[in-house]
Amino acid sequence: MHLRSAHRSLLVVGSVALDDIDGPFGLHRDLLGGSASFIARAASYFTRNVSVVGVIGDDFPQRHVDELTALGVDVSGIERTPGETFHWVGRYAPDLATRETLETRLGVFASFQPRLGDAHCDAELVLLGNIDPVLQHDVLSQCRAPALVAADTMNLWIDIKRDELCRTLARVHTLMLNDEEARLLAGEHNLRRAAAHILTLGPSSLIIKRGDAGALLFHGGGVFAAPAMPLADVKDPTGAGDSFAGGLMGYLAYAGDLSPSTIRTAMIMGSVMGSFAVEQFSVDGLRDLTTARIQQRFDELAELAHFERVRL
Amino acid sequence: MHLRSAHRSLLVVGSVALDDIDGPFGLHRDLLGGSASFIARAASYFTRNVSVVGVIGDDFPQRHVDELTALGVDVSGIERTPGETFHWVGRYAPDLATRETLETRLGVFASFQPRLGDAHCDAELVLLGNIDPVLQHDVLSQCRAPALVAADTMNLWIDIKRDELCRTLARVHTLMLNDEEARLLAGEHNLRRAAAHILTLGPSSLIIKRGDAGALLFHGGGVFAAPAMPLADVKDPTGAGDSFAGGLMGYLAYAGDLSPSTIRTAMIMGSVMGSFAVEQFSVDGLRDLTTARIQQRFDELAELAHFERVRL
Repeated sequence: MHLRSAHRSLLVVGSVALDDIDGPFGLHRDLLGGSASFIARAASYFTRNVSVVGVIGDDFPQRHVDELTALGVDVSGIERTPGETFHWVGRYAPDLATRETLETRLGVFASFQPRLGDAHCDAELVLLGNIDPVLQHDVLSQCRAPALVAADTMNLWIDIKRDELCRTLARVHTLMLNDEEARLLAGEHNLRRAAAHILTLGPSSLIIKRGDAGALLFHGGGVFAAPAMPLADVKDPTGAGDSFAGGLMGYLAYAGDLSPSTIRTAMIMGSVMGSFAVEQFSVDGLRDLTTARIQQRFDELAELAHFERVRL
Repeated sequence: MHLRSAHRSLLVVGSVALDDIDGPFGLHRDLLGGSASFIARAASYFTRNVSVVGVIGDDFPQRHVDELTALGVDVSGIERTPGETFHWVGRYAPDLATRETLETRLGVFASFQPRLGDAHCDAELVLLGNIDPVLQHDVLSQCRAPALVAADTMNLWIDIKRDELCRTLARVHTLMLNDEEARLLAGEHNLRRAAAHILTLGPSSLIIKRGDAGALLFHGGGVFAAPAMPLADVKDPTGAGDSFAGGLMGYLAYAGDLSPSTIRTAMIMGSVMGSFAVEQFSVDGLRDLTTARIQQRFDELAELAHFERVRL
């Protein structure tokens, strides 16, 4: 993996948070969280051209910012303002299959207004983490001519800001959400029909994340099913989807093209990074990875999915 | 697809039933059901060497038996005895994602004692549908030297006949069950660890069926993930797993070997037949298929799962 400066630039806008997470492994406080934290780290293994725009409070440990800098991420768009950092408190079920939000303290995120620097506005790839669709739209209004805009969202915005979300979706190329969110957005349980409906709202491709069942890509080039690696040790599913998105967009920046074939490979890189993320708490699973380990898990996924094409 | 008599012989032992199914498409009465009904039809597209052992009551329409005969299936082991055919009454949720059993009338199935004919005892491949593990064990005691014994089971038997099930599993090569059943059998939520545990109980390979998330194969050759085709029209999920098993075992009989590569391809044929089954009520989706249609869906699954192997 050659981290050339010629890679396409990737702009990430999302939350930077501190999480308190309870579950089968006990209560862990003040873990680094937030969509941008996972996305940027996952993407940084594929390209040096990652920039983050976000907001942190004065309680946010500087070492987390410094670590991103050490990974080659441009953190000039991370604004530190007086107040508390966005704080999420959640609890996972003993089997880690479900979670509930116990508390959300928006803190400085409540008045977050993404301001893009001059270089950010020229980003070729833009990944809008799961934030208010109005803010996502504001970001896109500041971007000059991105080759690819991808966005995540969640049931909250689908429920309370559907019109604003649809306005944003009209400018999004690739929408990523999980299966329940896709069903909610489309008002349709069947995923294939839900996907067909969502593709009439603006995005030309849709990625439905299904946790340990992998992810589906629906676009003009048909349907692609990316498998998930069955893992023996899962500690913390938080950030799995964001790590997937970061791996996917990071690989697209690295590969330098947006062909259907490259996008399929990028989905697998997303699955790889998601699998690393859930094996440890917070972003720990995305620390100290090497090209060799990423390649190894990619090869394992290729082996997992391999079968001979036969003729009856 | 050449239906040679040289194919390995496949013996199917399971239920033959009449189902009343309620759900989003209304109430349908007296539908042909039962594991053996789906398995035999799915397998019959791959080999003419399928035999069924089961029991029916005097209310069972002869046309269902005749149809199997027309498909080349040996029905000499389907015993008609006085009484009511096994009858299942169930209701699916509006989204078809869950179902509840409203009534089970065992009828003639209550006193079912599988009796294998002489030719049945020499079957090379044996598929034990989801019936009492004591009966499954009885069948195996009558088989001479099967090259492959596959079995299905369900939470009922895991709950009330665990010891008997374990006695059967010691003689089973390939166990097939769904994810919840695997978790229940292993007492472990994590599927990878559950699989490792189940493989200590006797079977050398385990297939975990996950509905529209596909199926996982765990065996000495590693892990294989077979995708499921995302379908726009699903009418009746009943029999999906049995159709999967029938396609898988039918293809193994057709291919004539049990190599890891052939087993992977057989899993895909299982996914193909499961996908056809759920598109119609009862066994209708398995009627009037052609080699060309089966090949077409196999090719679609191959395309669904395809991605380029890259080096970073």
